[in-house]
Amino acid sequence: MPILSWSRSYTRHEAGQDGLAALIVTIMLIPQSLAYAMLAGMPPEAGLYASILPIIAYAVFGSSRVLAVGPVAVVSLMTAAALGSVAEAGTADYATAALTLAALSGAMLFVMGLLRMGFIANFLSHPVIAGFITASGILIAMGQVGPLVGVKVSGASMPELLHSFWQDRAAFSGQTLLIGALCVAFLFWVRRWMKPSLRALGVGPVLADILTKAGPVMAVSASTLVVWGFGLDVAVVGAVPAALPPLTSPSFDLALIKDLAMPAFLISVVGFVESVSVAQTLAARKRQRIRPDQELIGLGAANLAAGFSGGFPVTGGFARSVVNADAGAATPAAGIYTALGLAIAALALTPLLYFLPKATLAATIIVAVLGLVDLSILKKTWGYARADFVAVAGTILVTLALGVEAGISTGVILSIGLHLWRSSRPHVAEVGLVAGTQHFRNILRYEVITDPAVLSLRIDESLYFANTRYLEDLILARTAEDAALRHVILMCSAVNEIDMTALETLEALMMHLKDRGIALHLSEVKGPVMDRLQRSSFLGHLTGRVFLSQHEAFASLTNHA
Amino acid sequence: MPILSWSRSYTRHEAGQDGLAALIVTIMLIPQSLAYAMLAGMPPEAGLYASILPIIAYAVFGSSRVLAVGPVAVVSLMTAAALGSVAEAGTADYATAALTLAALSGAMLFVMGLLRMGFIANFLSHPVIAGFITASGILIAMGQVGPLVGVKVSGASMPELLHSFWQDRAAFSGQTLLIGALCVAFLFWVRRWMKPSLRALGVGPVLADILTKAGPVMAVSASTLVVWGFGLDVAVVGAVPAALPPLTSPSFDLALIKDLAMPAFLISVVGFVESVSVAQTLAARKRQRIRPDQELIGLGAANLAAGFSGGFPVTGGFARSVVNADAGAATPAAGIYTALGLAIAALALTPLLYFLPKATLAATIIVAVLGLVDLSILKKTWGYARADFVAVAGTILVTLALGVEAGISTGVILSIGLHLWRSSRPHVAEVGLVAGTQHFRNILRYEVITDPAVLSLRIDESLYFANTRYLEDLILARTAEDAALRHVILMCSAVNEIDMTALETLEALMMHLKDRGIALHLSEVKGPVMDRLQRSSFLGHLTGRVFLSQHEAFASLTNHA
Repeated sequence: MPILSWSRSYTRHEAGQDGLAALIVTIMLIPQSLAYAMLAGMPPEAGLYASILPIIAYAVFGSSRVLAVGPVAVVSLMTAAALGSVAEAGTADYATAALTLAALSGAMLFVMGLLRMGFIANFLSHPVIAGFITASGILIAMGQVGPLVGVKVSGASMPELLHSFWQDRAAFSGQTLLIGALCVAFLFWVRRWMKPSLRALGVGPVLADILTKAGPVMAVSASTLVVWGFGLDVAVVGAVPAALPPLTSPSFDLALIKDLAMPAFLISVVGFVESVSVAQTLAARKRQRIRPDQELIGLGAANLAAGFSGGFPVTGGFARSVVNADAGAATPAAGIYTALGLAIAALALTPLLYFLPKATLAATIIVAVLGLVDLSILKKTWGYARADFVAVAGTILVTLALGVEAGISTGVILSIGLHLWRSSRPHVAEVGLVAGTQHFRNILRYEVITDPAVLSLRIDESLYFANTRYLEDLILARTAEDAALRHVILMCSAVNEIDMTALETLEALMMHLKDRGIALHLSEVKGPVMDRLQRSSFLGHLTGRVFLSQHEAFASLTNHA
Repeated sequence: MPILSWSRSYTRHEAGQDGLAALIVTIMLIPQSLAYAMLAGMPPEAGLYASILPIIAYAVFGSSRVLAVGPVAVVSLMTAAALGSVAEAGTADYATAALTLAALSGAMLFVMGLLRMGFIANFLSHPVIAGFITASGILIAMGQVGPLVGVKVSGASMPELLHSFWQDRAAFSGQTLLIGALCVAFLFWVRRWMKPSLRALGVGPVLADILTKAGPVMAVSASTLVVWGFGLDVAVVGAVPAALPPLTSPSFDLALIKDLAMPAFLISVVGFVESVSVAQTLAARKRQRIRPDQELIGLGAANLAAGFSGGFPVTGGFARSVVNADAGAATPAAGIYTALGLAIAALALTPLLYFLPKATLAATIIVAVLGLVDLSILKKTWGYARADFVAVAGTILVTLALGVEAGISTGVILSIGLHLWRSSRPHVAEVGLVAGTQHFRNILRYEVITDPAVLSLRIDESLYFANTRYLEDLILARTAEDAALRHVILMCSAVNEIDMTALETLEALMMHLKDRGIALHLSEVKGPVMDRLQRSSFLGHLTGRVFLSQHEAFASLTNHA
């Protein structure tokens, strides 16, 4: 367990650093936790609970020194989408489903960690993740426009959100909008201008930084005071119990578990990918490394903790982890102190939240997620590779149109499908000798030496079931009307595998060529591929030979050297 | 349309050949059609109907000259499994669902043909198909043991079949078993010994051949006569209407179509793969070629015809096509004559089927499908490639345990998954110069020249999202403690693609290496990959160079030549 490595040599200096970082992160996390709970359809205290025990569990099991776990925007949106299909927000069933989702996701992550299955995350390509986060940001912002103006909005996709907004448009409240708009403006100002302004006023850099991080807390306090003082008629958070996280139990109802299994898996993978990339970025800065499989265990423990302490799915958040690292967190103890700070808040501050307007929370969410929206990935992929563009565009469109689960699944299926499609129609180059070298290149791109009796084909792909028929057709077509041809050399420098289907196809191809008096040779067959061919009967009745290099093959079959 | 190419020059000689082939195929198809209808859970006449209009439709649209379409064993089994989940065998709903399944499958095949999507079949690897057909053969034979002994057996998987057999074991009938066992013995004798026996008796080769093909017809006639003559108490086919194929309509009920869509797709793909491999084998014998996309259209038309004329899903059958070809069929007109022969049978012979024992049909099925069972693929793949073995073993086990749809899906998912898994952990070889050549090979397998300041890595896979993290970790680990290292050359001869994710990872890797004073070079980058890199900003800040050949790279970075 990672905790054993740092706790033995824990110094007073580190404790001081960790304490300061924890203070700043706690101030930042209080409004964020409340807001993301609202986004997930949960009562506000659940956001605090989801940030207490999970942080401690991660500190014990996780491998990153600075990662701060808790409710984050994208995972909260996915949680709302998953729970919305099994229960009504605000009911006891909904809360139980949330616990179940967290525990399920935690168990999956934990088991994946034990089985060293971190590689699963590799099947989410960078562009797909970027597109998914962008589309999720748009969905979240759109969903929060409702509370910002007093209108009830629900749904897991753009059409549903717009439709519910239109249905409830009569509830529009000017007072709510006023508070919401002021908060949005203030928070944007805090983000861009507060620190330079404070510095210009002569405030020291550390204090200016802490005050800037406290911007959302100020918005929360000020708007609560205004609503309470002026008795405004806007939607408020209402009564929040003052208590430590309760001991709760997820449901063991098999039907519910079956319904939530797929969402839990998607939440696990997306949360893991987000978390690992944050942790890696921050570790690289300090030349540390994180262990992805240990991260799975850490996140698994955190989600299990959330499932047993009144929370909902959590993962490592980018902003809070950066703040934690920047504030000087030296060890995971900073997380434990943060948890203590939030526990005090859950006990002492919750009664003060009664008059907190929901519009303020919506404003903090909107300002946070608009930073996630970045459509430049579309332009970048369009210029570089169309397959990546199709995957990212598909992910964004499907996420907006049908919701997060369909969106991320589409992204994965599209990227795998496009990869298979390309490898099923591989590039095959007819190659010739570059004069004065032993190097062979494409006859269409280079001035090369060839021989009419010898056809050298470089196959730019492994030979496997998906592409063997295509290659067979291509080679038969190329050799069909070539009367001078006596030898075909397949240059296998890019062939990393020949599976059973390909082997059978090669045998058939060899027989076809033999009928026409053409011998089939192989060159530059790699070690692992050759090992396997030697275990089959193929080499025994090969009509040609296997050459170490293409140059050797060309030299011995022609008069060119 | 292929029919236009051969019908213009149709000769009397060809007509004679086609007529003889049609006669032999008709004799063979009558019992087969009845039997496969029983296997699909349909009334016997549906088997005849499924062989009349579909044959004509295929003759018009298909590209093979000898392929004989109609009900076949594996597709009939898949049909029974699909229909069993939406209706009770023997009901009107069941028949309507069968029509709908055929029409749906026909429409899918037709559209796939128009869109040139024949490549979809490539994702069924040879071992998966072999395993699936073997497992299907076992399931079919097991299912027919029921009618062979008078016991009612139903179910789509081995456990279900065994369970239902056990439930109805009291219905066991000695008389039925006697007829069934005699038929099985007779049909095996016909298969192995009849032809040589007839030849030994001085019968001419053509007649001996026709008589052998008539074996099942003899079994049908003899057992019908015995049951009628002795008044045996065994399950018989009963009243069969004497009529031409009726004009029927599939259902347009969306709920039914939704339920049948996935089975229809699987039936289409499996039927297409079976059919195309039969057609290709037979075309290759005569140096003809078939066009897979035209085959899709031909099979699509045949299944649409089945859906509108009282049939059920059909495809090209192996045995009947071989018989058709061997009997000298010269053009698809042979199919049209066969259809006429079967239409006459449907009109004139059906009243004679009343006393035909179901045990006889079960016997013809069992003898036919036992030829499909071939477990040697397990041994072959075990010796050659474990991934293929896992795919074939998984396909067989899941087909037997859970049924055909789960089985074929497992096969496809396993083979794609294993392919992705391997390409996500690619082979990377550290290479050196083979003395006296310009050729570079693995330092672990060959005596090669290397340089401590230069690390040459040959990456045996395309760089794409699924393997970039693995490669990054591997290269960072390899270079971590090597103080003498100044240059890393990635030899890209086997890199057929670098996607966006890989490009971003390469940039990150380059920065890591730069921090340690190591330059990153590329060699042997292929044309298409280089084109793409030139469209990005990567080459602009590459810390090393791009070399045409690995030899050039090694020569310019070291003193070795």
